[in-house]
Amino acid sequence: MNTRTINKGIFALLLAVPTLFTTNVMAQELKKPTLEDLIPGGETYRTTENLQGLQWWGDVCIISGKDEVKAINPKSGKETILFTLETVNRALKAAELTELTQLYSLKFPWVGRTETLLPVSQRYAVYNWHTHTVTSRDDLPKEPAANYDYHTVSHNLAYTVKNNLYVNGLRVTDEPEGIVCGQSVHRNEFGISKGTFWSPSGSLLAFYQMDESMVTCYPLVDVTTRIAEVNHVRYPMAGMSSHQVKVGIYNPTTQNILYLHTGDPTDRYFTNITWAPDGQSLYLIELNRDQNHSKLCQYNATTGEQINTVYLEESHPKYVEPQHPILFLPWDDTKFIYQSQRDGYNHLYLIDTKAQMYPDKHAAPAGGSYRQGYKVKQLTQGDWLVQKVLGFNEKKKEILFTATKESPLQSNTYRVNVNSGKLTAVGNNEGVHNPLLSASGTYLIDRYSTPRIPRNIDIVFTMDSKIANLLVAKNPHEGLEMPSVEVGTLKAADGKTDLYYRIVKPADFDPTKKYPAIVYVYGGPHAQMISNGWMNDARGWDLYMANKGYILFSLDNRGSSNRGLEFENVTFRQLGIEEGKDQVKGVEFLKNLPYVDGNRIGVHGWSYGGHMTTALMLRYPEIFKVGVAGGPVIDWSYYEIMYGERYMDTPQSNPEGYQQSNLKNMAGNLKGHLLLIHDDHDDTCVPQHTLSFMKACVDARTYPDLFIYPMHKHNVMGRDRVHLHEKITRYFEDYL
Amino acid sequence: MNTRTINKGIFALLLAVPTLFTTNVMAQELKKPTLEDLIPGGETYRTTENLQGLQWWGDVCIISGKDEVKAINPKSGKETILFTLETVNRALKAAELTELTQLYSLKFPWVGRTETLLPVSQRYAVYNWHTHTVTSRDDLPKEPAANYDYHTVSHNLAYTVKNNLYVNGLRVTDEPEGIVCGQSVHRNEFGISKGTFWSPSGSLLAFYQMDESMVTCYPLVDVTTRIAEVNHVRYPMAGMSSHQVKVGIYNPTTQNILYLHTGDPTDRYFTNITWAPDGQSLYLIELNRDQNHSKLCQYNATTGEQINTVYLEESHPKYVEPQHPILFLPWDDTKFIYQSQRDGYNHLYLIDTKAQMYPDKHAAPAGGSYRQGYKVKQLTQGDWLVQKVLGFNEKKKEILFTATKESPLQSNTYRVNVNSGKLTAVGNNEGVHNPLLSASGTYLIDRYSTPRIPRNIDIVFTMDSKIANLLVAKNPHEGLEMPSVEVGTLKAADGKTDLYYRIVKPADFDPTKKYPAIVYVYGGPHAQMISNGWMNDARGWDLYMANKGYILFSLDNRGSSNRGLEFENVTFRQLGIEEGKDQVKGVEFLKNLPYVDGNRIGVHGWSYGGHMTTALMLRYPEIFKVGVAGGPVIDWSYYEIMYGERYMDTPQSNPEGYQQSNLKNMAGNLKGHLLLIHDDHDDTCVPQHTLSFMKACVDARTYPDLFIYPMHKHNVMGRDRVHLHEKITRYFEDYL
Repeated sequence: MNTRTINKGIFALLLAVPTLFTTNVMAQELKKPTLEDLIPGGETYRTTENLQGLQWWGDVCIISGKDEVKAINPKSGKETILFTLETVNRALKAAELTELTQLYSLKFPWVGRTETLLPVSQRYAVYNWHTHTVTSRDDLPKEPAANYDYHTVSHNLAYTVKNNLYVNGLRVTDEPEGIVCGQSVHRNEFGISKGTFWSPSGSLLAFYQMDESMVTCYPLVDVTTRIAEVNHVRYPMAGMSSHQVKVGIYNPTTQNILYLHTGDPTDRYFTNITWAPDGQSLYLIELNRDQNHSKLCQYNATTGEQINTVYLEESHPKYVEPQHPILFLPWDDTKFIYQSQRDGYNHLYLIDTKAQMYPDKHAAPAGGSYRQGYKVKQLTQGDWLVQKVLGFNEKKKEILFTATKESPLQSNTYRVNVNSGKLTAVGNNEGVHNPLLSASGTYLIDRYSTPRIPRNIDIVFTMDSKIANLLVAKNPHEGLEMPSVEVGTLKAADGKTDLYYRIVKPADFDPTKKYPAIVYVYGGPHAQMISNGWMNDARGWDLYMANKGYILFSLDNRGSSNRGLEFENVTFRQLGIEEGKDQVKGVEFLKNLPYVDGNRIGVHGWSYGGHMTTALMLRYPEIFKVGVAGGPVIDWSYYEIMYGERYMDTPQSNPEGYQQSNLKNMAGNLKGHLLLIHDDHDDTCVPQHTLSFMKACVDARTYPDLFIYPMHKHNVMGRDRVHLHEKITRYFEDYL
Repeated sequence: MNTRTINKGIFALLLAVPTLFTTNVMAQELKKPTLEDLIPGGETYRTTENLQGLQWWGDVCIISGKDEVKAINPKSGKETILFTLETVNRALKAAELTELTQLYSLKFPWVGRTETLLPVSQRYAVYNWHTHTVTSRDDLPKEPAANYDYHTVSHNLAYTVKNNLYVNGLRVTDEPEGIVCGQSVHRNEFGISKGTFWSPSGSLLAFYQMDESMVTCYPLVDVTTRIAEVNHVRYPMAGMSSHQVKVGIYNPTTQNILYLHTGDPTDRYFTNITWAPDGQSLYLIELNRDQNHSKLCQYNATTGEQINTVYLEESHPKYVEPQHPILFLPWDDTKFIYQSQRDGYNHLYLIDTKAQMYPDKHAAPAGGSYRQGYKVKQLTQGDWLVQKVLGFNEKKKEILFTATKESPLQSNTYRVNVNSGKLTAVGNNEGVHNPLLSASGTYLIDRYSTPRIPRNIDIVFTMDSKIANLLVAKNPHEGLEMPSVEVGTLKAADGKTDLYYRIVKPADFDPTKKYPAIVYVYGGPHAQMISNGWMNDARGWDLYMANKGYILFSLDNRGSSNRGLEFENVTFRQLGIEEGKDQVKGVEFLKNLPYVDGNRIGVHGWSYGGHMTTALMLRYPEIFKVGVAGGPVIDWSYYEIMYGERYMDTPQSNPEGYQQSNLKNMAGNLKGHLLLIHDDHDDTCVPQHTLSFMKACVDARTYPDLFIYPMHKHNVMGRDRVHLHEKITRYFEDYL
């Protein structure tokens, strides 16, 4: 390359005879990707091709595109155009409703009816593509509302305005500031993501009410107003007073509210609400504040009284974590599916409510225990875990779900027969699948990627195999010079557990060179950095840095997800410590690679990964030369109750753990260059973490660096994400 | 040095014959000073020797030391010990009062009486060293109070508890939060530094009452509490609603309060309160919000009515700035001294209240004007200015004061005869003097420093010359290797004005080398970086950096103090712009020096200097490579009303000026490395400046650096000041 750069004349000559220099010319044609190409929010960011608006209408596959809606017969793969944007807009105009600019977000909940649910100003209208008319619509006042929950059978519409609940235009609750109704509670932990729950017929609405008035506020300062203003957010910190939750049931006919008679809600979590199929009662999983005991409870929806039966209770010396509402079998209202990690992995259990038993206490592994008042059949088992239940095949009496059975790095589809317990794989055994099951359970829209396939979408017959391909996405990096990605395993610090790592090498990798290496780390529960999806989940910045001449390395340490409970809970009451030991194993592996310069090891991560980055810089100052920690947890006592106490208990009950994991206590250890980045509107990991760490370092006379992104929340998203990564890049370029 | 380093053997040999290499051996013995040696707050910080507790007791000089109090006869210089700590403590113990650990803060207000005022728990006790007893004391409840104002004749004691005023244990005012009584107002501008004013006999107390309830609060977040808390400070930003001030008069005998009948206090500044010698009336200088018109007003202390006489009014198209209360001649209650810049320099004017005249309007230079209703005699004049009035010599009918007559870099002492107008210098004509005048005006305690003298204290006979020397301070840098300091002048950007610069060169300066240079800048009004005091005011960090191989340079640009009104007000309505042009002249001078590397110019400053640093980095990105801006003003609309509107008017009336000086609008120009440092409790220049600048840079995709010192105010003081300077040093070392 050098000689050519020196003599441009010769280079021009070489280009004139391209056949002789194919490889070189190819290399010339590839463009080095920029951060704008690789970081979401970048001006030239390359997304992977997709089919938006893909869904099932019963067993008919629908592609609700920009300008038209197509139906695909899953048996034949034959496409039919159902209607177009133009016809929809004609009907909307006639009904004096706002017209649409695309059809991506249409829904098809009415099987057998030629009707679709249109999102009109966030509420609803129903369009019949046979009569070309709007057949149903809301006529609610246009106040600023949120959390729309439309029931497709009753056409009832629940929503919230500020902190109160409304149904069909009527205000249901009238609570003062500090009490929130109809919204998600418990900071979205325990699988909770919404606050309203229609009964199967839509005649009753269960909803959460959360009293936060006793929760301290965290002050986030908005510097963009004329004079800075405080945005107060209720933030319950570990060990402090927590909010109190009630479950209400609203009857739109009588306009009455009934609150379940749960008793004093202090320090209790009401999670995973499910209606009984008959709409007469409600199930929820209650959890104590210590999060080591869960109980499936049933309440009478008419009286609000608890039905005094032991269904299922689970205990664990560390923690239990219910995350999935029970699911009744569509063909048998007396049986439901319960998901539990009690044997160490998340599996499916079938509960028969007709077969009552004496609720003996049973021992579970690792000191756990459970009681159950009914006959229970474990439907899946093994050292792998069920990830997502997709639905049922009523005819075959099967449940379909995704699981890690093939590899902890994968999500593949399986069906299990409820009667025989027979487990069968569906579709291919590669990659990471995120499928959609048709109404009858006969077909899958099988969306997946593998390390070499950015995205593939097939229609799959669940009893047999692939029927039709809907999309083979083009390589989004076409024309770009891309690094290589490898995945492997190494032993954890316990000497026995296999951990997965990913290594990203420059496109022009030269094994005789010595490269600086950067560890990208997350390390916390509920997440995994390495998968068998597209490019093994290597991030855009990893690829960018590899191209700049760094080895990028990630390792899913003990404590991370998809490996089962014991793998995860080894970190209990001492977050960051075992994880750090595993990351050091990763670095030892790295340093043994002949092409890694062991004196130039950097580390970067955000949130839990920000904690890990800071902790690694402080606990292993001799290993890590440069770190960039984003939105880090510094002191777990500043973190919120639900997530924090699950893993750390309270500062009162675990003072040693909080003390040992409090990075302020190690501020004096800082030797290398450490940049902390925080968003000033971070309401997940509040700025107090980073700012109090600055003070600790000043007190200890060490010298971290700092940057603050105003007005961003728990990460820097959108256009500014490119700025963030340029900032991070410069730090490593300056100091590593 | 190099050859010696290479061959240690030879070096050892040379050391064996020290007499031959005296100079080198001396150099070996000198220690390079550390930041701990040079920065206030450092563990080994070297202060200059001083005599604490030095003061006058009538015409007797008192040294109130740690363990004993000495009297010095100024005529003979003869010392006598008056009493000791031991005797004082014996009396305090007998009176059941807290004993003292030193005698530094004793006061001697009672001429001819053997009594001293003791500071006991911040209140008072009077000790008679003749009778060895406590003769007078307060017996007030011990609530947390502040702003003690003790009247030595009446023994009345005023103070504040929270926002209310108390006298002799009685609550005087009963105002809600948002209304402050008895404290300094108008953010200490206009020479205001306190909020209570006893009448000459102590029978009446004038006090400020400030209603801040209409002033917006700025939220400063304290991250050291369990969960971060907001400290709200009332901060009136330019162009917004300002506080409203009243002047009350409290009569301790009747316990009544009378508020002066000033009318609506909106947008009016009541400044420079003085009692008439007879205690029957009160003077103040009123200023309009636009600060271009001042008026000396007199109010009847019994009725509160204004006495309807035109005393003195001054106008200026830019601004007037009254900073000195009027001063009555001790020998003639009908005459007082008024200080004014109306001829372009601060001078003394004698007003004869017996000689009333028709108040014609008179023109003053640069479009200014004034009216006066009495005969006025200008006592001092010339292109120099009066700094501090020290007092009077009643016998000789003289006023004594310090002034810049010798040089704008100096403060020397003068006396002017009120009758003849004859001006005479007192003491030497060098350096910066900060004298204390004895009661009769016969003697000075003359404290001064020069570039070569760290501190000298003499007793001087004001009619003649020095009598006795009390202290020649040792060089505080003894044993340290110190850089050399030079001062000179260069032409401002206007091509005609002389500006003073200071240059600091490494101790081992080698004129054949090329050194990087750092400009330390302030640049704003009311301050001067260069004087003819000790080391020409070179700062500890300047000396430290020079020793590390940098040339340190400072220039007092137009806009800075001690050069007169026109020199200062050239920056009106466009702060930072003319100042920057002058600083560029300074850099041009620097770059012409053969030993300066013109490609390595850095800049550093705090507050106004932080604004200048940032502005220079953005307006002259081709000149300045690295900058460190501390507590910077970024947008003058975020600065407070009193100071900000004087120089910038309001954002409403000067939109172009605010727009042009708003550094956010230039965020995209950043090319070099710029570190902004802000304190999170900065209530002078609020953190919004720096944080909103970060956002502007992110928006403009430029890359400043940031650091925040939690819990510090408008600068980093105390122990952490060493950390700050290490941080700043590292930044220049990394990038310059």
